[in-house]
Amino acid sequence: MSLASLTEIAGGVAAPSGFTAAGVAAGIKQNGNRDVAVIAADRPVPAAGVFTINHAKAAPIVLSSRHLEATGGRARAVIVNAGCANACTGRQGDADAAEMASRTASALGCQPEDVLVASTGVIGVNLPMAQVRAGIETAVAARSADGGADAALAIMTTDPFPKSLAIECTLEGGGTFRVGGTAKGSGMIEPRMATMLAFLTTDADIEPALLKRALVAAVDTTFNAITVDGECSTNDCAFVLANGASGTRIGETEFDAFVTALTHVSGWLAREIVRGGEGATKVIAITVTGAATEGDAWLAARTIANSPLVKTAVHGGDPNWGRLVSAAGRSGAAFDLDRTSVAIGAIELFEKGVPHDERADAAAAVLAGRDIAISIDLGLGSHAATMWTCDFSAEYVRINAEYRT
Amino acid sequence: MSLASLTEIAGGVAAPSGFTAAGVAAGIKQNGNRDVAVIAADRPVPAAGVFTINHAKAAPIVLSSRHLEATGGRARAVIVNAGCANACTGRQGDADAAEMASRTASALGCQPEDVLVASTGVIGVNLPMAQVRAGIETAVAARSADGGADAALAIMTTDPFPKSLAIECTLEGGGTFRVGGTAKGSGMIEPRMATMLAFLTTDADIEPALLKRALVAAVDTTFNAITVDGECSTNDCAFVLANGASGTRIGETEFDAFVTALTHVSGWLAREIVRGGEGATKVIAITVTGAATEGDAWLAARTIANSPLVKTAVHGGDPNWGRLVSAAGRSGAAFDLDRTSVAIGAIELFEKGVPHDERADAAAAVLAGRDIAISIDLGLGSHAATMWTCDFSAEYVRINAEYRT
Repeated sequence: MSLASLTEIAGGVAAPSGFTAAGVAAGIKQNGNRDVAVIAADRPVPAAGVFTINHAKAAPIVLSSRHLEATGGRARAVIVNAGCANACTGRQGDADAAEMASRTASALGCQPEDVLVASTGVIGVNLPMAQVRAGIETAVAARSADGGADAALAIMTTDPFPKSLAIECTLEGGGTFRVGGTAKGSGMIEPRMATMLAFLTTDADIEPALLKRALVAAVDTTFNAITVDGECSTNDCAFVLANGASGTRIGETEFDAFVTALTHVSGWLAREIVRGGEGATKVIAITVTGAATEGDAWLAARTIANSPLVKTAVHGGDPNWGRLVSAAGRSGAAFDLDRTSVAIGAIELFEKGVPHDERADAAAAVLAGRDIAISIDLGLGSHAATMWTCDFSAEYVRINAEYRT
Repeated sequence: MSLASLTEIAGGVAAPSGFTAAGVAAGIKQNGNRDVAVIAADRPVPAAGVFTINHAKAAPIVLSSRHLEATGGRARAVIVNAGCANACTGRQGDADAAEMASRTASALGCQPEDVLVASTGVIGVNLPMAQVRAGIETAVAARSADGGADAALAIMTTDPFPKSLAIECTLEGGGTFRVGGTAKGSGMIEPRMATMLAFLTTDADIEPALLKRALVAAVDTTFNAITVDGECSTNDCAFVLANGASGTRIGETEFDAFVTALTHVSGWLAREIVRGGEGATKVIAITVTGAATEGDAWLAARTIANSPLVKTAVHGGDPNWGRLVSAAGRSGAAFDLDRTSVAIGAIELFEKGVPHDERADAAAAVLAGRDIAISIDLGLGSHAATMWTCDFSAEYVRINAEYRT
């Protein structure tokens, strides 16, 4: 079944019926900005999560993954702090993550296992628990159906703007439901098989197993298809909570329509993360077509999307298409120079092995824009993939050379 | 057999007896600098090469590889131009590379197959052949035993300084020989299984097959163990020519000693390439120990060496060791957070899963230097690897955003 309609609405992660959210300033961030967020349903509801494949998993990642297993895919709330990642923090870090869950549970009146925990910020420093405890109390008390925007602010680190979206969808067969979401991520962004911090809510009525399948499907072409700097973090995770409050049942028949809705919100948030990438001034869609296998399509697209020479060339507005060919050539994907074509926007600069550098000026005009489409046809098969990346600026270096000191 | 002595001497690539070299300005580089180099023996001599694994191989790479096959591992000379890579240049590019070989051969009085060709510079633009032809004539006529320094200048692109070294070695069993070398490389540097432009000469007397084995052995831990920006180029290659003029015979007995000599020159040139990496201000040795397999050791070291967050942190003098752990954790190498230790210089910041962020100030003092040693013990086995990389500065972005425009 498809969707009959899909409309953007206000309210972000708290827009679906029955959800509340809040974001408060607890003193974890040194600049005094909001840094503790809570997103809650009114009872434990079907929930799913995907987690970083980095082997140096942060304490909250390990804890939340265990909680979802213990409850068989249900959760009442997500508690999040920014300003400290609680990663590489030893036994104390494990205890702190557990305490974040238990304090949130006490305040809400549920079991600790019903709470998912996420953290983002500096690695290797223990959480300032006095501030975290007070922040949890304040956030749980402050949550409301209007709190989505504050929650989106509270999960930011070096993000230049908050990311928040909600949609209302109607199924072809009738039945309306909403999906809300918020995400953060600016540097250390190349979530693989997992994602950065992203929180999705829906009032659709869906079983945990089907919800997990839908999340994995949505994440695959959205959060897993973006990169800022090729760095898969210790803290990446995406959660979705589904409280059924819309009364719209999602079964196998409605599954594809639900995935479309979830993918819409995830895709928008993922591209906003790229737009807000550290130092980014442009969003670049890298589309590889004609690949021999689907794996090759992703491999080539991912390699190009992470190439510092491609990203700096786009930053400088230089249509240096040879760097695109070189990155595809070193990606490991099956490759034949004489079958390869490259275009920036609609300008073909390399056609089946023949250079058209005389079109460089036209391509430079395309690169002057803020949203750039680059396509590479490998001419070997029918598989395609699109990765979203940003340009690479001196500002990225400045941000990351000065992050702590 | 080992080496009894190894002494650095002047003369670079033309230091071994019987070799000549030259570097001239032919007008390929827009700034008027030297841009055509020739390195020649007095007859076809044993020669070996290793080439980029990038599938988008440049025309001179394809040609030189074919020439070495045709001659069974012999060459009279290497002709090199900088300022234009002759890569992704279609049929015209193939014809131009062949003409570079045949014109050099005519001038020297040998067969075209006896000439190896290398190019470096912008991708996707055809060679200005009028300038190249004149440059070849001038360079062949100008070559002398004192021409090593000029040749090193002529192969530079964005390199901030030339790289040139020669050594004189004595075998334990008696017998003296020399090894000379020059290399270039500043950006698009992560030669895998191959290398960037590097030219080695020796007056040792060695058969082509043994020479090839020695080159592969030397390249493995030197040119293949460096990265500036993770970009394996279309034009990477390393050649060695051995004219036997020293009268010192290298057989199986002397092989290890010869590899030591070749590795000394290759390693020095490789680290100089890193020191002259685009925008680099520091050279960083990333040593991974305790890996479960040798592959894991290289994987972890390579991932850390290419991490933009590690490279920007070192640039800013920020001992943000969590980024080292995160990069090792996402590398795919077998990893256990509780067995992992990290040190910057001699300062242990993470010991078997326990953070010591209170030692950050001491580590910051280490990072204030120009040569930084970083070590990561994975605590899982006995395998080790060292990768050489540089820090990542805003200057890298400036150079590569403005390269052509």
